[in-house]
Amino acid sequence: MKKTVYLDYAAATPVHPEVIHAMMPFYEEIYGNPSALHSAGRNANKALTEARIGVAEILDVSPAEIIFCSSGTESVNLALQGVLRAAKGRGKHVITTGIEHHAVLHTLDYLSKEGWETTFVPVNRYGQVSPDSVVEAMRPDTVLVTIMHANNEIGTINPIADITRAVKQNNPKVFVHTDACQSSGYIPFTIPMLGVDLLTANGSKIYGPKGSGILYVKKTVMLHPVEHGGGQEMNRRSGTENLAAIVGFSKALKIARTHAEEESARLSHLRDYFIDEIFKNIPKTILNGHPTERLPHNVNVSFLDIEGEALLLYLDNAGIYASTGSACTSGSLEPSHVVVGIGLSYEAAHGSMRFTLGKSTTRDDIDYVMSLLPNMVASLRKISPINLDINDFLDTQFPVRYSK
Amino acid sequence: MKKTVYLDYAAATPVHPEVIHAMMPFYEEIYGNPSALHSAGRNANKALTEARIGVAEILDVSPAEIIFCSSGTESVNLALQGVLRAAKGRGKHVITTGIEHHAVLHTLDYLSKEGWETTFVPVNRYGQVSPDSVVEAMRPDTVLVTIMHANNEIGTINPIADITRAVKQNNPKVFVHTDACQSSGYIPFTIPMLGVDLLTANGSKIYGPKGSGILYVKKTVMLHPVEHGGGQEMNRRSGTENLAAIVGFSKALKIARTHAEEESARLSHLRDYFIDEIFKNIPKTILNGHPTERLPHNVNVSFLDIEGEALLLYLDNAGIYASTGSACTSGSLEPSHVVVGIGLSYEAAHGSMRFTLGKSTTRDDIDYVMSLLPNMVASLRKISPINLDINDFLDTQFPVRYSK
Repeated sequence: MKKTVYLDYAAATPVHPEVIHAMMPFYEEIYGNPSALHSAGRNANKALTEARIGVAEILDVSPAEIIFCSSGTESVNLALQGVLRAAKGRGKHVITTGIEHHAVLHTLDYLSKEGWETTFVPVNRYGQVSPDSVVEAMRPDTVLVTIMHANNEIGTINPIADITRAVKQNNPKVFVHTDACQSSGYIPFTIPMLGVDLLTANGSKIYGPKGSGILYVKKTVMLHPVEHGGGQEMNRRSGTENLAAIVGFSKALKIARTHAEEESARLSHLRDYFIDEIFKNIPKTILNGHPTERLPHNVNVSFLDIEGEALLLYLDNAGIYASTGSACTSGSLEPSHVVVGIGLSYEAAHGSMRFTLGKSTTRDDIDYVMSLLPNMVASLRKISPINLDINDFLDTQFPVRYSK
Repeated sequence: MKKTVYLDYAAATPVHPEVIHAMMPFYEEIYGNPSALHSAGRNANKALTEARIGVAEILDVSPAEIIFCSSGTESVNLALQGVLRAAKGRGKHVITTGIEHHAVLHTLDYLSKEGWETTFVPVNRYGQVSPDSVVEAMRPDTVLVTIMHANNEIGTINPIADITRAVKQNNPKVFVHTDACQSSGYIPFTIPMLGVDLLTANGSKIYGPKGSGILYVKKTVMLHPVEHGGGQEMNRRSGTENLAAIVGFSKALKIARTHAEEESARLSHLRDYFIDEIFKNIPKTILNGHPTERLPHNVNVSFLDIEGEALLLYLDNAGIYASTGSACTSGSLEPSHVVVGIGLSYEAAHGSMRFTLGKSTTRDDIDYVMSLLPNMVASLRKISPINLDINDFLDTQFPVRYSK
């Protein structure tokens, strides 16, 4: 069998066997509608309650503050549409960054038609936001700040606790939301640690099922539903509860958090080895994202003078699965808005590649990739009409790792 | 083991074993993100395309007209919010009935805040809408007509093809949506047969997984997304595709349609036997819904002078699972808006019970229920302070089956 090395765990993870095991009873046995009053419904409802308590305990919040929904995207939409529509008349301003997931950016773009104005605070070369710049952007009519916990492309972790504290000191009435889809399986945060009012997480990034996600919403937050109907999820998200997915999410989060420390240590070790090998063996390359404040499984580099898409296909032929941008936009040939957002030119952004490691990744896998990658990059450069100068991409204030 | 008889298939079905079998590979093996460009992503994308083609063939439409989403409720919300927000400035009027699912009623209620006006056309004693009354309600600023195909509580089937034809003759620019969640597994319709522009179906009513649904949208319909983000589902519904659920929905629809004729015949036979037994053995009872134009698995009756909730608990103690209203509202003690909507008083509506049959239901099950039900009703009546007159609930224009 052809060797395959899956290095796209930030796009989608397989479902953990124990999670599948936990989900199975809800297909054939416990299939009652959790809203039904008979025993079959009550059994389903009991499982729903237990799953909710499981998530709430991990995040150290009240179960009534957890809304189950069908994806990270839905969770973000509910947070943004829900808070802003409920705040209509009370304000008209939102603060975010330009390197958020498209779920945030496109939702805010849509809400601009309803009169909402967005300020994009700058991020530095590492993709980090400073609390001061958020406070500077605050206006009397600001209602919401939404800034991701860890970036899905470059893996940079934001100081969300500091940002929340700064926002609340300036105006405690402004709500803070964070998209923690990428971080929730790796960083053992609780809600009190971050101080946020709303938080998004999803299952498909933490070895849970696709089609699962949560929105944490602090009791004090006014929120309009986006999906209207039977009034499930405490009237905040209608639709028959997808109990298998809900139980799966809860289980996946529990497993991820139980092993977060050791697995993050293992992955960061492997990640650093991979980065070292890249810079030892491939010239004219730049590391994107923060040197240390980054997700333990994320490697994002720009190989100058090449097209990432072409490299992706070379890698694919060798059974290596990586990504040039977030999966959600990888059908397009636009360079990553994140890599452009941290200051790289379009040309350099075109050569950026994301490798994200996961629970099956071994040192052998990395060695296999490194046995091929330098030659692939070299052969693509041979046919490239571009010849960029690495010095144009360096910044003394924010030094990045690079090779000449 | 205690005998259990599940008669709440309209609230939720178990997942068909073949559907589970079809879904399993997408948890551990084909877990790539369908938007990713590598082979793992392309394999996932291929399965997504095949599932879409499968649904499109059954409904006799183009695959690009099928949007996968996470529930019937989401599908309805996308249809209503999507069409109306896209039509802003072009009209401000919607037509529906008062006995739709809450997904329709509550979404239109929310949209009234954005300036949309709703006319509720009357339904007759059977819960049917006449094409003429829809046409009468049409105004120059009408944008959308949304009328359910078959009612989830009383099982009445509406003449959607006639309604659509009448609407289009009057004004071809008015869109017609139908909620076909309850009918799509039992009635072998295609979209050309109904003539609608939008149609909602979901998996959890057709032995598919919860967390699955579709919205059919005719090419010519302008639709704004409700969930914004990565641009999946042809930019109409963002969020990583829940491939297991999508494949499961497609498979479930195929299985249901393959056996629709024989299974509907079997179920209507069993349903009629059940109804006969009820009227032979239980006095002061009225059949709700249409005598013949009804779903093959639906029995809905009002037992006068009793509280449905109390009967539900008696039945539950005997292992019989039924419903007093739709599951989505059965947590509330309000009587069914549908039974009230077809003209029964609150008092009579309080005694209404829905039994919905399914693929495991046998004549033995019905006999078991009938060995207990008459005594349960009789004993509840003994302690009831109410004594209604059956004649108050009869209507010569729309005769209903009843017992004195």
